[in-house]
Amino acid sequence: MEGAALTRRGLLVGIGAAGGAGAMYAAMGALGLAPSEPSEQEKEFVPPRTGDFTLRGKGTAKVVILGAGVAGLTAAYELGKAGYDCTLLEARQKAGGRNLTLRGGDRLTELNGPAQDVRFGEGVYFNAGPGRIAPWMVTLDYCRELGVPIETFINTNAAAYVHVNDRTVRARTARADMYGYVAELLAKATNVGALDKTLTKDDRERLLEFLRRFGDLGPKHAYEGSDRRGFTKYPAIDIGTPLDAPASLHRVLAAGTGRAITNDFGYEQATPMFQPVGGMDVIVAKLTEAVGKERIRTGVKVTKITNLADGVEITWDGGALKADYCIAALPPHILAKIPHNLGAEVTAALTTPTPIAAGKIGLEYGRRWWELEDRIYGGVTETDLDITHIWYPSHGYHSERGLLVGYYATEGDAELYGALTPQDRRHRALTQGKKIHGEKYRQNLLSSASIAWERQEHIQGGWVRWPAFDSSFTFLQRPAGRVYFAGDWLTHLIAWQAGAMESARGVVTRLHQRVLQSP
Amino acid sequence: MEGAALTRRGLLVGIGAAGGAGAMYAAMGALGLAPSEPSEQEKEFVPPRTGDFTLRGKGTAKVVILGAGVAGLTAAYELGKAGYDCTLLEARQKAGGRNLTLRGGDRLTELNGPAQDVRFGEGVYFNAGPGRIAPWMVTLDYCRELGVPIETFINTNAAAYVHVNDRTVRARTARADMYGYVAELLAKATNVGALDKTLTKDDRERLLEFLRRFGDLGPKHAYEGSDRRGFTKYPAIDIGTPLDAPASLHRVLAAGTGRAITNDFGYEQATPMFQPVGGMDVIVAKLTEAVGKERIRTGVKVTKITNLADGVEITWDGGALKADYCIAALPPHILAKIPHNLGAEVTAALTTPTPIAAGKIGLEYGRRWWELEDRIYGGVTETDLDITHIWYPSHGYHSERGLLVGYYATEGDAELYGALTPQDRRHRALTQGKKIHGEKYRQNLLSSASIAWERQEHIQGGWVRWPAFDSSFTFLQRPAGRVYFAGDWLTHLIAWQAGAMESARGVVTRLHQRVLQSP
Repeated sequence: MEGAALTRRGLLVGIGAAGGAGAMYAAMGALGLAPSEPSEQEKEFVPPRTGDFTLRGKGTAKVVILGAGVAGLTAAYELGKAGYDCTLLEARQKAGGRNLTLRGGDRLTELNGPAQDVRFGEGVYFNAGPGRIAPWMVTLDYCRELGVPIETFINTNAAAYVHVNDRTVRARTARADMYGYVAELLAKATNVGALDKTLTKDDRERLLEFLRRFGDLGPKHAYEGSDRRGFTKYPAIDIGTPLDAPASLHRVLAAGTGRAITNDFGYEQATPMFQPVGGMDVIVAKLTEAVGKERIRTGVKVTKITNLADGVEITWDGGALKADYCIAALPPHILAKIPHNLGAEVTAALTTPTPIAAGKIGLEYGRRWWELEDRIYGGVTETDLDITHIWYPSHGYHSERGLLVGYYATEGDAELYGALTPQDRRHRALTQGKKIHGEKYRQNLLSSASIAWERQEHIQGGWVRWPAFDSSFTFLQRPAGRVYFAGDWLTHLIAWQAGAMESARGVVTRLHQRVLQSP
Repeated sequence: MEGAALTRRGLLVGIGAAGGAGAMYAAMGALGLAPSEPSEQEKEFVPPRTGDFTLRGKGTAKVVILGAGVAGLTAAYELGKAGYDCTLLEARQKAGGRNLTLRGGDRLTELNGPAQDVRFGEGVYFNAGPGRIAPWMVTLDYCRELGVPIETFINTNAAAYVHVNDRTVRARTARADMYGYVAELLAKATNVGALDKTLTKDDRERLLEFLRRFGDLGPKHAYEGSDRRGFTKYPAIDIGTPLDAPASLHRVLAAGTGRAITNDFGYEQATPMFQPVGGMDVIVAKLTEAVGKERIRTGVKVTKITNLADGVEITWDGGALKADYCIAALPPHILAKIPHNLGAEVTAALTTPTPIAAGKIGLEYGRRWWELEDRIYGGVTETDLDITHIWYPSHGYHSERGLLVGYYATEGDAELYGALTPQDRRHRALTQGKKIHGEKYRQNLLSSASIAWERQEHIQGGWVRWPAFDSSFTFLQRPAGRVYFAGDWLTHLIAWQAGAMESARGVVTRLHQRVLQSP
């Protein structure tokens, strides 16, 4: 009987691989394996809304998940839907990992630094970790499935500033000038015949037509400035007051605005982007609710991972737990430090990626001067200062208070800020932001909170970088005995929640196939 | 005593012009003109929130406003704040003019066409008139002042399509390819020395650095495609499946995507843009509430405007009204048809601008397939078809139903759709949209409603075009006797609500100055 079941299961996995989950499930029914009338206890978890990812076939194994960050929560959520009995062990005091939203009343501690009491007003929040979601990312599918309402995160704003080489200019102006001169130069080269070997006569005409449009060129293909640069006073009853004429080609090239104005060209940052209404951690709250709060044990610092022939044993200070399988969803550099019997190759692979420092500061103001005076509604000011960016809030428009992200720094800049006291971080961020926004940047400030992810206990980094996506990366995609690994760090979506979710989906799919195959 | 008051008033206007409204108001207090303890009735209207535009000094004149569109409502609102007694006469059955939002239960009639009963589901709306607001526009100030909540209108979406010359491609792909080849061509011209007379060595290096970034060029400054084009399968655990390689330079130029990918370059259309939460007519509702519903008389078709020595008389079928001043806030071609004694020059000026046809269709679907399958969350697909654009909704993400704007056509295309029955408009719009989205564009359709603005009674046009902003335009900025003119058509913001609001502000400022100066 056991042998027969094994064969059937093997067959099912084959059908699943070839025909997809639907085919596998249909075959299970035909083979009499699908429960026809499940008892109340056996009923599959029904997600809040239909998801497009579902494990088919019921799993009955017990799974312990290390880390209740987004990868761990997603794994528990998907396994729970398929009938698994999951327990999450989380070293920190709350679930979510880097998906952390700070609000008034929160207390933020860090390694080697003073604690911060967050004093933001009612309704004000600071997404200290991830803050935006691209529409192609699986994160949006989870928002849909879990009923997390979303709204636009404005990642590109023509009215935001570019601050490079000590000069501040609106993004629209920097872009109009670069595009204008690029168009003029290419039109000139085309017209003097420099590209005649490359371009047919038709090509040339089409190219010139595009360049006139692209650069808003004058009749002789010269860039003479353009409405697109913006106005001192925008058109109304009169035609408006344009800005001063653009600087020379030489000065525009020397201004160095190129990085800033191409920042949203990539597939990860292209407009539009999205955010959950009310804070990024609404995703954590909804995942937690769906998984079952009682399955998440916080404050549990694992001291040992033991792979056994018939299961896995997890030990911590004052307790231990045995399960059929383990999913280790911790940052690799944290996981590497936990004693285990998974072999030296696992440890070597886990220590291959390097943690990267990342930090942010939330600056809460009592007046949304960026909307009232600068007409900046959401978006990002790009700088070559150590603050790198200033993010303006994409929600709560026209309300009394608002929170800017005063720096979002990585690597060296993040370490610089991270090494300061919270007070000194704020002081430095304000000094830098003042270069762009003037004295008002220091006025009306109500409170602030800053995070240095490399100083967050049990996380110790914003994300990791692999020297190459080679053997170590591939090696950890496979389980070590009964221990699977999951996290954004095992994907090509590092530093995105979507990576954690994709990794979790991959792991639970493979774990589930194994369970279905097991005797 | 009257003479003394006149002198004081003249002085006040002088102070106001020189020192602003605050100085004028302070001077009024000093001169004993500002009421120290106004009676309940005399109290100035207090706007819901502080606005940045306020008439100072109390006006007591009676003003009749023709047309309760955005210009008329704004004029009444601002005059009401300053103490004027305003009456609005509106020929249509409701206020708002072109600011029209259609919802289930509405009935839309048009000239020479069948009525449409709007059957949209709960919460679904169609902004049949204006749909988006640029952040620099005064419309946002009124949203703030009136307490109209706003949200992002996504005007640029890398995931939306460009459909030109019978080919459909994602906007991100069209843009990456054009930018890539433009960068390659200019790099080539630069490297062969074609621009050596224009560029210094430093310029050349900076330009090449920018071009590598701008076009995502390969090491030899060649465009070889790029991640920015998008993926068949986006990166996850694996690196993703890129799209096929880009077409040749020749084919990319011939594709003709230039207009589509530069559509958001202007100051009016640049990202981000905004919309009121719940429909554009929330602005109308809040203005109506602030003005006082009882001041708006709908269904009143004015038959005569008579300028008198001491006032103005407005006549309609079955009634007449006398006031101190009139603000005619109707479309010029409608106003020109109403008999008046304002002189032939006024009629000539009013008939100078030409009304432009404009039309839209709202297509309500029972499934948001554009989000679920195309991963298009808001934004606009640009086409060279007669539908011109498809707008995807920038709200209600992930909900069950949703409404697309299936065409937003102007001039000839609008006339083409306008001449069809509502059923045929829908049929044509679906046939066109299917070229982009396939058969699903016709499936799941629940209902539709279409508008041809040139067929809307008492409006008869989407907006107007001036042959030139010359003497007629300037002439109508001034009153004809006691009759003032207001509307977007008297500004450089034609077809924008901001134009109507700016015009209204201008008119009430001049009218108020005159009242303060009058004996």
